[in-house]
Amino acid sequence: MIRKTRLFTPGPTPLLPAAQFAMAAADIHHRTPEFRALYQRVLAQLKEFVGTQNDVLLMACSGTGAMEASVSNLTSPGDRVLVLSAGKFGERWVALAKAFGCNADVVTKPYGSTFTLDEVRAALKPDTRAVYMQATETSTGARHDVEGIAKLLRSSGSEALLVVDAITGLGTTHFDVDGWGVDILIGGSQKAVMIPPGLAYLSVSERAWAAMETSRNPRYYFDLRRERKSAKAGESAYTPSVALVAGLGAAFDFIASQAGGDLAAGRVALINNAETISAMTRAAAQALGLKLFAPDSPAAAVTAIVAPEGLDSSAVVKELKGRFASVIANGQGDMKGKLFRVAHLGYFDFMDTIALIGALEQIAPTALKTPNFQFGTALAAAQQVYADRVAEARKAATPEAVHA
Amino acid sequence: MIRKTRLFTPGPTPLLPAAQFAMAAADIHHRTPEFRALYQRVLAQLKEFVGTQNDVLLMACSGTGAMEASVSNLTSPGDRVLVLSAGKFGERWVALAKAFGCNADVVTKPYGSTFTLDEVRAALKPDTRAVYMQATETSTGARHDVEGIAKLLRSSGSEALLVVDAITGLGTTHFDVDGWGVDILIGGSQKAVMIPPGLAYLSVSERAWAAMETSRNPRYYFDLRRERKSAKAGESAYTPSVALVAGLGAAFDFIASQAGGDLAAGRVALINNAETISAMTRAAAQALGLKLFAPDSPAAAVTAIVAPEGLDSSAVVKELKGRFASVIANGQGDMKGKLFRVAHLGYFDFMDTIALIGALEQIAPTALKTPNFQFGTALAAAQQVYADRVAEARKAATPEAVHA
Repeated sequence: MIRKTRLFTPGPTPLLPAAQFAMAAADIHHRTPEFRALYQRVLAQLKEFVGTQNDVLLMACSGTGAMEASVSNLTSPGDRVLVLSAGKFGERWVALAKAFGCNADVVTKPYGSTFTLDEVRAALKPDTRAVYMQATETSTGARHDVEGIAKLLRSSGSEALLVVDAITGLGTTHFDVDGWGVDILIGGSQKAVMIPPGLAYLSVSERAWAAMETSRNPRYYFDLRRERKSAKAGESAYTPSVALVAGLGAAFDFIASQAGGDLAAGRVALINNAETISAMTRAAAQALGLKLFAPDSPAAAVTAIVAPEGLDSSAVVKELKGRFASVIANGQGDMKGKLFRVAHLGYFDFMDTIALIGALEQIAPTALKTPNFQFGTALAAAQQVYADRVAEARKAATPEAVHA
Repeated sequence: MIRKTRLFTPGPTPLLPAAQFAMAAADIHHRTPEFRALYQRVLAQLKEFVGTQNDVLLMACSGTGAMEASVSNLTSPGDRVLVLSAGKFGERWVALAKAFGCNADVVTKPYGSTFTLDEVRAALKPDTRAVYMQATETSTGARHDVEGIAKLLRSSGSEALLVVDAITGLGTTHFDVDGWGVDILIGGSQKAVMIPPGLAYLSVSERAWAAMETSRNPRYYFDLRRERKSAKAGESAYTPSVALVAGLGAAFDFIASQAGGDLAAGRVALINNAETISAMTRAAAQALGLKLFAPDSPAAAVTAIVAPEGLDSSAVVKELKGRFASVIANGQGDMKGKLFRVAHLGYFDFMDTIALIGALEQIAPTALKTPNFQFGTALAAAQQVYADRVAEARKAATPEAVHA
């Protein structure tokens, strides 16, 4: 049988063809008016996509590079910071804070869970300089309460800066960066924006710019002030990832095209898309008799599903790849073998989702040892979720229907 | 919701990415050693793919061009030919025979049916110069009995040449061109070989070459003798479709890669692929309560499904396109509005098929007015067909299992 390779991983995600074409055509020099015009256009789109009046900067690095920038630019050795950690990427904040000599208070919760506002309040100190968190923890499929924590910081009179890793959160979760007061929000290219890895971006508030003036940690490539200065001139400080910038522009054009050319509305449509197909996937997993790893606060970006007792989730990953050339993610770190993860962020549609659930049903008897399994059970559950959401959306779009 | 455009049409069919890349890179002149090396390699692959020792020629035209060549090269005005017609492409043979002044006997059967050997025997005359037929009639989804008719011709002592339009038959149906004595077998590029339209190819037997010596119909661009002479020198007679030739080579590499590098075995795998997903589709259609248009002799290339009484099949085509960006084919000619067609030839896999059936289930209540429809019914039927075929294939591959 023909088996087309399909990614269902939370980064890299499936590439948008229009972005691939734009990347292939990006044969331009980066110190020319042509590139400056492209760069300025993409930076403007990026602000609209992030939904902020703050500066948004683009850098040739992975998301971790932008995470590092938000530590090295905001802190000095010995500074007290608060890290919220309930997964592999929370742990990365801890490692970064330590690498730059910060004194890190850590609220640690088990993988798959999230933080209560009381826990955050209790850990916040008068001299906490910054709070580092994930919007969605990619390793566990949990969504954290960015809005609640941002409001807690502001209402508590804390002067701590709020830094949010939204690498898988952007395009799958609603943010009001300026209204909530998120000081740095970080995104990456190989996620909801449908292009390959290699670009990171971050929005930076005026409070964060001010804080940089007193930060004494060393930085050069990731010096955000230098990058801001270049961006104002329509350039990047160092050689930019030209093809990825062109691809990102094409991706934003596509996202806007999903909402009549309005990029902000296109971002909302993209989030709704991820919400619908994640809901389909959760329903299918439950119909297969499987447990969700983060049932209380599931992210729309990625669904983590627990392998049945006594089974290794690696078998699911391996059998899907071997039999259907579909790539899903295993658990990370301690969770390897315990769960598998299916992504929904970016360029996925209804048909991708039904197809993956069909493949999961095929491997259910062997890799999942699902008892009394009937073909069509998980598919029917997903179909019903989709039909219900379509019906709701239609009802919402037709005022008469609401009153009918 | 994001909706990725997907073709489920019997030509054009979904493009193979490796072929697209080869086409994009095909920036070479056609009168150079580089192109001659490519052309000779692809002609050799073509012979292996068709499965013949006869010459196989490649021409820059659609399949209809090769159909014309097999009339204009083999006949003279006033020649008696026999056409087997049970669909739009059978009718095309009639039109071509008339255009070149032939005296056409026609066995006409209703759309969706096929021919008995007795019907063909009765229509065959001592002076019939050639028999023209389809291997699979794309407009109806019926498979015709090429082997039976070829053997009938040989056993009856007829000297008629056998010309088979296998444009959707190649790669979906087994042929033994040399063993059965098929004089011309015709294929097209936008079919099972996974590249865009614009190339046709045909195998030509020694009997056919001999017949050309006495044929007096005018031909120039489609003069097969001239094309053969150029092919022997590793070139095409006229400017070839360079990018498509490069794409075809990449497609053959892919087809061979499905069977450890053996192209003939890869063709068998491709046929099995179409057989499996067509069987899944037929089961799903029947589970939806729909009737097959050619139930007695269904082709693996394409499945034609009858719209329920009183409904227009255009609604199915339109709703699948509008809601899911999936393109299926309506009926052609008189059949427009009466049936819809789903293709299986070429680059389709299990997941494409499940996805399409999922979309068909979503539109079933509206476009198909399926009574008492339950989500998962059609999907479960297709899942069972796939699982059964995989189990059978495994059994066949494991001698112990057969005897267990």
